[in-house]
This record gives sequence, structure tokens and C-alpha cells, in this order.
Amino acid sequence: MDLDLAQLRALDATVTAGTLEGAARALHVTPSAISQRLRALEAATGRVLLVRSKPVQVTESGQPVLRLARQVALLAADATRELETDDGGRPVTLPIAVNADSMATWVLPALAPLAGELAFDLHREDQEHTAALLRDGRVMAAVTAAADPVPGCTVTRLGGMRYRPMATAAFVDRWFPDGVTPEALSRVPVVGFDRQDDLQDRYLRSRGVDPAVPPQHHVPASADYVAAVRLGFGWGMVPRQQEPPGELVQLDADGAVDVVLHWQQWRLRSPSLDRVVAAVLAAARRELDQPR
Amino acid sequence: MDLDLAQLRALDATVTAGTLEGAARALHVTPSAISQRLRALEAATGRVLLVRSKPVQVTESGQPVLRLARQVALLAADATRELETDDGGRPVTLPIAVNADSMATWVLPALAPLAGELAFDLHREDQEHTAALLRDGRVMAAVTAAADPVPGCTVTRLGGMRYRPMATAAFVDRWFPDGVTPEALSRVPVVGFDRQDDLQDRYLRSRGVDPAVPPQHHVPASADYVAAVRLGFGWGMVPRQQEPPGELVQLDADGAVDVVLHWQQWRLRSPSLDRVVAAVLAAARRELDQPR
Repeated sequence: MDLDLAQLRALDATVTAGTLEGAARALHVTPSAISQRLRALEAATGRVLLVRSKPVQVTESGQPVLRLARQVALLAADATRELETDDGGRPVTLPIAVNADSMATWVLPALAPLAGELAFDLHREDQEHTAALLRDGRVMAAVTAAADPVPGCTVTRLGGMRYRPMATAAFVDRWFPDGVTPEALSRVPVVGFDRQDDLQDRYLRSRGVDPAVPPQHHVPASADYVAAVRLGFGWGMVPRQQEPPGELVQLDADGAVDVVLHWQQWRLRSPSLDRVVAAVLAAARRELDQPR
Repeated sequence: MDLDLAQLRALDATVTAGTLEGAARALHVTPSAISQRLRALEAATGRVLLVRSKPVQVTESGQPVLRLARQVALLAADATRELETDDGGRPVTLPIAVNADSMATWVLPALAPLAGELAFDLHREDQEHTAALLRDGRVMAAVTAAADPVPGCTVTRLGGMRYRPMATAAFVDRWFPDGVTPEALSRVPVVGFDRQDDLQDRYLRSRGVDPAVPPQHHVPASADYVAAVRLGFGWGMVPRQQEPPGELVQLDADGAVDVVLHWQQWRLRSPSLDRVVAAVLAAARRELDQPR
């Protein structure tokens, strides 16, 4: 297959912008130039790569080509930087999936020093979809609890987040007057994050309580989740990294659930990506729980 | 169509739990009882209501039936409460969609006083999908910028959120040494929320800058978005309700963009829902911008 960089760039830009018009503006060409390049790329690969919906959708055949386009874009940006031939100073975009609690705590401060030179396109990680995001090229790396390497990716262990069942002292006084018994846990409101979040369920099961029984709120944003626990909606599993100092008490000294996080990334040597990895690994060593 | 309450409850619980097994545990019956009730409901309506995937998916025919099931559940819970025949104290669940910035600021404190009696199943509002969530019964109300009533719903204006272009003082010094000119705005990093968020784009266009040109980070969680602006990733549109006091400065005194929020809810008289509406409207009057 003959590679044409302008065609690959058109594919990357169209998926990033969601429309041919947006891609045209980003690349300073006309929409019909984008359209021609996409058609040429589809002719060269013999496959339909994009569904022209709004926003466009990558087809299954388009996934490896998009991934290739983004890998080439990253390498080209690195080479440009090395040659000091500035391409207008536009930083390369790194699409990365990050699990919600990491985004709300340690990841943004780790990436901040690089934010002037790289553009971070962060995606909400969701364990069920992260593998697909990595595979089809929508992200090039992920902070995820998924330990199994996605094909074409390397995996590095980052460390653990320890979740403990927490609530306000006033909530404990009101709802657990006789202690944190299975009977009480069956009727006291729980704050869950979303349908995929099973941390509260795991704790309840460890105490012999069917997780389907207690009333459950759902607050599907990380900082808002902790805010809901602080406002007394219910008890919830909160990681040490996110506890507002002194405000919440632990329900149960033995109730911790550990989640181990991993860094998955494409097998690709890139100075830009290497700098991100170094920043993420250094922050993870400081902020996450490490084995002794 | 003959209504059977146990069948409707089985449908509601199956969609809530995502699986027949989860519904069975929540209703304290066997999975085969759930399966029989669903089949009977499908026979009575003459339609396939659920795709038995994991999680289950409501079919188009199932949407009005699910909505009916949830309306009936709410009315039944209200009646139970009025008759003071306690049904084990399990609070009724209110599924509500809330836009991210409202969830991160004024909505949780407004709902907190009711959280012991009602269970709030909050969904991340996304303007494109909220109408569908209301229509198919997955939520019974929404805090949304969508002003057009979804069929079967009433709309109440809540008030405005005023977004202003903000950044840290250090960021302004570094990136705007010659002032907030169109030339500077074309190369200074922007923090966007997600692909649907066009607030930054609207401000850039008002200054004659093509939004596709400046480098853009994406941070798709409300509190984390403001954290990224505070960490100096870029400038971003931040509502007054979310500004950390004194930490951010406004780029441009004339650059405000107003978003008007609405409450959409099913046409349904329910004491539980009425209490939520009263709490939301009172908080909106206090916390949102109201016309003089």
C-alpha cells in the first residue's frame, strides 16, 4: 500500500474534528480537498474507512488506518521538533484515556508541565471501552484498571488506589446507630458512580449483603461523587487521594478494596509520548500505593 | 391492554439492574419469575420490549412501556407513602439527567435534603441525548439547555449560567504579553470539555478566530475542567458558579457567553417529583442568573 502523508493527515483531522469541514479548517485546505484525499485513501486501501455521518464514524477497516495515521503524525511531529523546523508551533495532540478518579486526582497535575508543548485530548476511561479505544486508534495510551495488554500495546503497572467505605460523621450517627451491621447496610443509602462501578457492591458482598437491596444513588462524575458523600446522600467507596481532609470517617476499618492501575500504550518510540510516560510514571510512584 | 403491575415492575427493575438476575434480586423473586413476567408483558403488548443483551436494551416498542412502568412505580410509591403503609422503607428511585456543570455546582446541594427519602439516579446530560433519555423513559426529568419540550414533557426556565473566558494570571502573562488579540488567540492553548462543547468556539468566533486553529486540550469532567484551567493547561470558559475565588482572571471583559437552563419533566403529578421540582426551582432562583 502506497502511503500518502496528506491523505493520512486528512483522515486523522476528519476523525478529530468530526466533520470534513472542521478538518478542512484545521488543515487550512478546502473541504473538497479533504474529501478527495479521503476518497484517494479509500481507493488505495480498497476499503470504506469512514461513514460520512455527523460526526463521522470510523469503520472497522478504517481503524488500523486511523491508528497508522496517528502514529505517523506523532513521529512526524517528533522529527519536526528534532530538526527544529518549527511547523507553526502547533503542538501534537495526544489522545489518552484516563479513568475518572485518576483524572480527578493525580493525572492532571502530572501532565500540566507538558501542556504548553503537547495538546492532551483526554477521554473518559471506561473499562469496557478502553480496549476498543486503544485498538481503533482513538487513544494512544490509557490509565486503566485493565491489566491485559491490548494487541499492539505495552502495559506498565502504575500502582494501587485503595478505596475505603466512607461517610460523614453525621451520616454514620443517623444511619448506623447500632454499628455497621449487615442489617443496617441493607437499608442505608449507598452512593454509586455509574452502572459499571462495582466497588460498593464488592464491599457489600464482603459483608454478606446483596448489593441489589440497599437504596442506591448514582452520581456519575468523580469530584461530584465525593461531593455527594460529603453532602450526606449516602456512604461510598472513596480513595485516599480524594478524601477531603478530616471530613469523612471510615465505616469499617477492614473494608478496603484495592484497584490496581496500569498504563497501556501503543508500541511506538516517540520522544513526545516518552515524556508523557515519564511524567505519568513519576506521579504514579508518588501518588499511588506501591508494594513495599 | 390489560395492565399488570408485577409485569411492569419486572420491566422497570430489569432495565434498572441491566440483567434479569439483578432484577430478580432487587424484587426478591427468582430470575425465572422475572423472565415469565417479561414474556407475559410482551405477549400482552404484542411486541418485543427488551433485547436480552448484557445489559438488556429497551427496544423502540419497549420505550413507551418502560416509561409507563416508571410512571406507575412513582405513583404507587407516592400512594404508599400517603397511606403510611410502609413498603419496607425502600425509597423510590428518580432517574434525572443533569448537565455536567450544574451537577458540579448547584444541583447536588439542592437535592441533598431529599436524599434520605428518594434515591437519585443521576445521568450525565448531553444535549444530543437528553431528549432520547426523556422520551424512552430512562429519565423522568432533566436539567438541560434544550428549550424545546420533548413530547409528553413540560418545560420550565431555570435561569442562566454566564460563562466567561478565564485563565490564571501567570498564564495570561506568559501567553498574552501583547493583550488578548485575535493573533494571540489563534495560537494559545484552549481547554475544551468534550466534542459537544462549543462555548470556547463561540467566544473565538466572536473574536474573528477560527476555532479549528488554536491547539486544544479536552478534559471531559466538570470539576477537572476547572482544575485544568487552574493548572495552566489553557484558557477556558468558566461559569461564575465554578470560579475558584480569586484564582482566575477574565481574559476579556466583553467575552461572556450565556447558557439558559431548563427543567424538562414528564407530565405527571407526583408528590415525590413535586418535591424535587420545588427544591430545584428554589436553588435555581438563588444560584442561576435571573432576568431583572
